[in-house]
Order: sequence, then structure tokens, then C-alpha cells
Amino acid sequence: MSLLVVGSVALDSIFTPFGQTADALGGSAVYFSVGAALLAPVQVVGVIGNDYPVAELERLAPRGIDWSGVERADGESFRWKGKYSYDLQSRETLETRLGVFASFQPKLPSSARRAEYLFLGNIDPELQLGVLAQVPNAKLVACDTMNYWIQGKKPALMELLRRVDILLVNDSEARELSGDWNVHRAGRWILAHGPRHVVIKQGEHGALLMEPGRTFYAPAFPLEEVFDPTGAGDAFAGGFMGYLARSGDSSEANLRRAMIYGATMGSYAVAAFGIRGFEGVTLADVEARARAFRDLTHVTLAEPVARATA
Amino acid sequence: MSLLVVGSVALDSIFTPFGQTADALGGSAVYFSVGAALLAPVQVVGVIGNDYPVAELERLAPRGIDWSGVERADGESFRWKGKYSYDLQSRETLETRLGVFASFQPKLPSSARRAEYLFLGNIDPELQLGVLAQVPNAKLVACDTMNYWIQGKKPALMELLRRVDILLVNDSEARELSGDWNVHRAGRWILAHGPRHVVIKQGEHGALLMEPGRTFYAPAFPLEEVFDPTGAGDAFAGGFMGYLARSGDSSEANLRRAMIYGATMGSYAVAAFGIRGFEGVTLADVEARARAFRDLTHVTLAEPVARATA
Repeated sequence: MSLLVVGSVALDSIFTPFGQTADALGGSAVYFSVGAALLAPVQVVGVIGNDYPVAELERLAPRGIDWSGVERADGESFRWKGKYSYDLQSRETLETRLGVFASFQPKLPSSARRAEYLFLGNIDPELQLGVLAQVPNAKLVACDTMNYWIQGKKPALMELLRRVDILLVNDSEARELSGDWNVHRAGRWILAHGPRHVVIKQGEHGALLMEPGRTFYAPAFPLEEVFDPTGAGDAFAGGFMGYLARSGDSSEANLRRAMIYGATMGSYAVAAFGIRGFEGVTLADVEARARAFRDLTHVTLAEPVARATA
Repeated sequence: MSLLVVGSVALDSIFTPFGQTADALGGSAVYFSVGAALLAPVQVVGVIGNDYPVAELERLAPRGIDWSGVERADGESFRWKGKYSYDLQSRETLETRLGVFASFQPKLPSSARRAEYLFLGNIDPELQLGVLAQVPNAKLVACDTMNYWIQGKKPALMELLRRVDILLVNDSEARELSGDWNVHRAGRWILAHGPRHVVIKQGEHGALLMEPGRTFYAPAFPLEEVFDPTGAGDAFAGGFMGYLARSGDSSEANLRRAMIYGATMGSYAVAAFGIRGFEGVTLADVEARARAFRDLTHVTLAEPVARATA
């Protein structure tokens, strides 16, 4: 099934306790598509300036990423510069330069308009609504957002929520959107405002998939080395949507599987700077790690034993 | 199988955003035994002053808690007073009065010396070693500790670690003990210093069971209402050890089950002030919640589907 993502294609400069990188490929659509493409071909809609290293993008195309929907505008590409704390638990944005992203008005090529699986990455909810209107036959629509839009564009965001199937956010965003610090109540609030499912990402503490009356919990991988958390949430979304597009099945059991594939892609994203954590990763690697994820929480309950000695 | 816990029997005064309580039954041995007794009879060794509301303890005896090993000393009982932040994520100790606990020297009654399952609650590691020496035939020994002993009694604590099967600590204690902020590396460090298993409790983010080369993750229950986190870790230990004592089986599969029963008891502990969260809870309730825990992370991987569309 065809998968489309709309989001940022950026250049990131990142400082962590383990090193730094400058003007590396980044942005929500890049992390998403690198994660998704291990499972399903993905088409990207976004914008870059005339300073973007297009050859580096094109080098990713053989993985199954179609960049033809990325507009090339006159001006500077979106740049983000950030610094992580010693334990990677918090980060500070040092600089954001929107560049050509500031005037981005997504116009979808005809191939993109036929997408069946659509992910609306973290951009202005008015633009997300505009994209959604251009993909009338989407079977499954998921979206992301961030504090900036929750604070500044709440009415458009609430309108968007009524029209999507799944919202994927991190825990602080779920709290801010709902006004409730308890993530489970926050998730229930979101479900009452539109989406059939909400995914709440909790970084090193895993992620929740909620539907009314039911919750699934996907752990994070027990990594002894984390180099760069940037993009983990977008790679999670890519694995999640990529798995759904690959299987063409949005049943509850399959959404749970999609969570595991999302968590798997998140675990690759944090293993190195930028998208380098995905270098050399094969579908067989992904499936082996997904099995390791399943084993991490696998438990059977031995009720006969418990009864016998009662 | 017989289960013994040595630890504090205290009176807690707790302030949370939802209310307060004064001089309520508390202490590690109390929370442990209330959690454990739902699964297996438990014998307690500890000390109380002549101001302790013994009748309230005795009211818990029919649940399967034997308090006869609790020494009654002349003086004031151990008291702790603490206040939680608005989101229950942190707490401040307002007052600690050790009272008779300051000169506690555990002397085990003969019935306690025959225990097969032993939990050394959070007391001076020298006392923990002294108790261990009095229980020569214990089949499984687990212990807890805290920052105070890690800082002040490290040599005795390291000696204890060489003699126990399982260390149960929270994540900040594992980090401080190992000197490593990554919990997975911290767990590996602990495993290299004695215990065959380490349990790292992460509060609302669940708990890890580690053995060399293998990790199990038990989530926390998705609670919309948490009233008082006090004692959740001790109740977890009670459920964990109670399940092992009940089943008499320390296999890897059964340790995973024990984690789920531990997490179940932790979820009852936080549902009300003090030990009130356990009021009216039956074994059938416990088993239903354990099944809900299992379902929370249950996932199957559909590899044939993934291959078919590759």
C-alpha cells in the first residue's frame, strides 16, 4: 500500500556529550522515511532550499524513498541546532532558522494524491489540513504535532484531530494538549476529541497505544549506548506507518505489531548521530530486533501452579 | 514455602496534592508483607516502640502475616514524614525519627531461622548480613538498599551483594551504586558484583529484571489516579517474593511471572494512602490484574504477512 509523508527536510547541527555534527540530514520527513523505507516504499513531500545537499538525499533513494515530491525553493534550507544534557534527558534548542520552510505551501504531485497511508508530520496544522484535503482516498491518516502549534494554532489542530485516525505525540505534548499531567487521562482526552487511536511516545520509557478502554505498551529497547536521541520519535512514526502500509491491516493486533516496529526504528535512530544509526540495517535485522522486543516483555501466567498451592 | 522479611515497621505522615495522613502504618516490612500475604504467608522481623498501634498490625494478621517476630522495644517507633510534588514525581523528606530502629539488632525467632525465602528490606547492610547468617537454609535471598547505605556502608553492602541471589533497587539507587547513569549498564555492573539477578524499579515506568545477557521488562499499570506512591517499591518486592514463595520455582519463566505479580502489588499500593489500597483486594482480583498486565504488552509477530508483501 502506498505511503506518503509530509514534513520537514532539514539540516541539523547537534551537540551531545559524545560529539557533534553540523548540517547533517535531518527533519521529521527524513527520519520518518528512513525508518519507514525498511518496511515499505515511501513518498516524501517537503521543501528544501538551494543549499541542500541533494546528492545525500538521492543516495537514500535506493532504500525505497521517493524524493520527487520535495520542492526546491529559492532560499536557505530549514536548519536546527540543539544541544543535549550529559544524560541525554533534556535538550536545548540553540537556533532554528526556518528558511524556505516558513513559506511552505505543500502542493502534492498527482502520484502523492493517490496515497493510501498518510502521515502528516509536525508542521502547521493548517498546512496539515491542506494536505489532507489533497489525499481524498487515504485509508489511514496519522499526524504529529508539537507544543508550538498546541499553543499557537489550537483551533486548527482540534479541527485536524477530528479528521485523522491516529495522533502520535510525545508525553509532554499529550499533557499540554489535554491540560492533564496524567498521560493516561491525557490520552483519553485526546480520544474524546477525534482520533480512534493515540500513540504517546515516552522516549527511553517506551510508548503507549491507546484506544477507548484499551492500552498497549511497547517498551524501549534496553540500550547500553545512546548517542543521539534526535529523530527517534519520527523514526518511530516511520516504522509504525511503514509496517501498517506493508501489511495493509489496521486491526488491533496489527497496530500492536506496528508499535513494535516503530520502537525498533526508534532504537536504530538513537544508536548514532543523525540517520547514521540506520546504515547497513537490513529487513532481517529489523525482524530480529522486533522479535527481541517481543521477548523483552513476553510472559505467560501459570495459573495452575498458583492454584495448586493456594 | 516459608517467606521471611526483615525491615522497618514505621509510622508515616504523608502529604500529597490529594490529602494527608498522619502516623499511618508504614515501613518497608509492612508494605512488603501486605503485598506478599495476598500470595503466601509471611513472617516479619522488625522492631516497634511502645507507642505503636499494635492492634492495627494485628488486624492484618488474618491476611497471613505473622508479626510475632516484631520486637517491642522501650522508646518511640520509627517515624517518617514526607511531602510529594503536585505530579507525584518527586518527594521531600520533612522528618525522619529513627527511635527504637536506631539500635535495632535483629534476633530471629527459631521459626524465622527456617525460612526458605528471605527478603532483606532496606536496613543497614551490616544488619542484613547478620540476618542472613541466621537463616542458613534459605533457598532464595533478595535484598533492597538505599542511597544512605550506598554512601555510608559501601564495603558491607558489596559483601552482602556477593551473598544474595537478587538485588531489588530503584533506578536512582542502581545508578548511584554503579556510578553509571545508564540503567542497563548499571544493572550489568551489579550483576558483575554478585547477584544472579537484579530488579531495577522505575516507578510509573515499570521495572526491569536483568540476568547476564537477558532483560525482562514489566510495565507499570496505566493508572489514571495515583494517590500516594509511598511503599510501592516495597509492595512490588512483596508481590515478587510472595509469588516465588507460593510457587517454589525460581526458573527464568517464573521470575518473569513474579515481576508481574510485583507490579500488580505496586499498582494497589499507589491507589490510596498508605496500605489502604489493599483493602478488600482478593486473590481473584490479583490474578485478574496480573492478566491485565500480561495483555498490556502482549503482541504476536506476523512474519508470514511481512514476508508475503516483501
